[in-house]
Amino acid sequence: MENKEVWLTSLITKTPQEGRELAIKMARKSIAAIQTDPEIRKKLRADYANDTAQLIASANVIAIEFQTIAQANNFWH
Amino acid sequence: MENKEVWLTSLITKTPQEGRELAIKMARKSIAAIQTDPEIRKKLRADYANDTAQLIASANVIAIEFQTIAQANNFWH
Amino acid sequence: MENKEVWLTSLITKTPQEGRELAIKMARKSIAAIQTDPEIRKKLRADYANDTAQLIASANVIAIEFQTIAQANNFWH
Amino acid sequence: MENKEVWLTSLITKTPQEGRELAIKMARKSIAAIQTDPEIRKKLRADYANDTAQLIASANVIAIEFQTIAQANNFWH
Amino acid sequence: MENKEVWLTSLITKTPQEGRELAIKMARKSIAAIQTDPEIRKKLRADYANDTAQLIASANVIAIEFQTIAQANNFWH
Amino acid sequence: MENKEVWLTSLITKTPQEGRELAIKMARKSIAAIQTDPEIRKKLRADYANDTAQLIASANVIAIEFQTIAQANNFWH
Repeated sequence: MENKEVWLTSLITKTPQEGRELAIKMARKSIAAIQTDPEIRKKLRADYANDTAQLIASANVIAIEFQTIAQANNFWH
Repeated sequence: MENKEVWLTSLITKTPQEGRELAIKMARKSIAAIQTDPEIRKKLRADYANDTAQLIASANVIAIEFQTIAQANNFWH
Repeated sequence: MENKEVWLTSLITKTPQEGRELAIKMARKSIAAIQTDPEIRKKLRADYANDTAQLIASANVIAIEFQTIAQANNFWH
Repeated sequence: MENKEVWLTSLITKTPQEGRELAIKMARKSIAAIQTDPEIRKKLRADYANDTAQLIASANVIAIEFQTIAQANNFWH
Repeated sequence: MENKEVWLTSLITKTPQEGRELAIKMARKSIAAIQTDPEIRKKLRADYANDTAQLIASANVIAIEFQTIAQANNFWH
Repeated sequence: MENKEVWLTSLITKTPQEGRELAIKMARKSIAAIQTDPEIRKKLRADYANDTAQLIASANVIAIEFQTIAQANNFWH
């Protein structure tokens, strides 16, 4: 089940920094689309926020999402 | 054995949000192409929906699929 | 030892769906190029078809292969 | 919670070397966006700085971030 | 210590199939550049050829290398 | 702490082979940027040079870095 709230209307952001924030949001929304129960997600959060391997894996996802956003914004030239 | 149902006729979506939904669908269909038994997939689902490492790995797949979809849609410019 | 059968003459496919099937084939052929014994591969198959972490890792490979195929086909525009 | 300090105003760097440094910074900021407590991050640092698997995973993130930065800088041509 | 034998003079291949073979070679040469002892590599081979998680991880490397080769060959159009 | 020695002045290399060597150097420098103690790095080296999973993960990093270098060199056309 995908969450049906519309949260992504554009990949365009005003600044690279906002692009980073969007990348983090995209990564989080992917997890929310698979684990749809917000209470379980809250409990799981402690698991990965204290596990460096998972923090690094999360950073990998953010890096890929950001690459897409940066391309969409023509690298904010 | 691939599943022979036609589920992907185009990479074009109306909005980035629909692009996200397609990316999630593509990731799921890959798993279904390898584990073809829907009953087993249903049982396995509990394994990864409660395991943050696997949720993050799933988000990595979605990020790559979305990058392809975003390029196909010229980033919805 | 690579398997010497010619199985890839073109990256062009008629539809995105056929592109997905080619991506899955490419992923499988990579594994066959390293583990060349078909009997062992058959036995190993049970290992990953029931392990969600490995199913997700397989989906990651398929996503990358598909990205290449989609680019080759100019995203089927 | 994202950290609200503005730390990324541009992807442009004078040299490839500075691009590497920015890539490392981006990777670190992703981790800081998820684990927001600097004291916990300091403690966790020992976990991954001595674990080669995690060092390699970190290098993977840096490689992706650098690819984006290199594209933004037209590869410093 | 890198292995100093020249084994990569061009990314151009006649066919996509040869591109796959080059991708596999590139992946193997990376491993040989880190583990420089051929005797140890031979022994290690049994470790990953029978471990599906490592076979899939190898396929991930091959997919990335092939993407580069496919781009270099303009997808063999 | 980043290591402040300037080691990357250009992504341009004369040959694809030199591009591979630069990719390996970039991967190593990422690890050195996180684990800054050369004595610890030397000790850790044995950990991953004999662990195929880590050798494959290293090859993944090299593949990404090489993709960037190949693009910078217009694939040495």
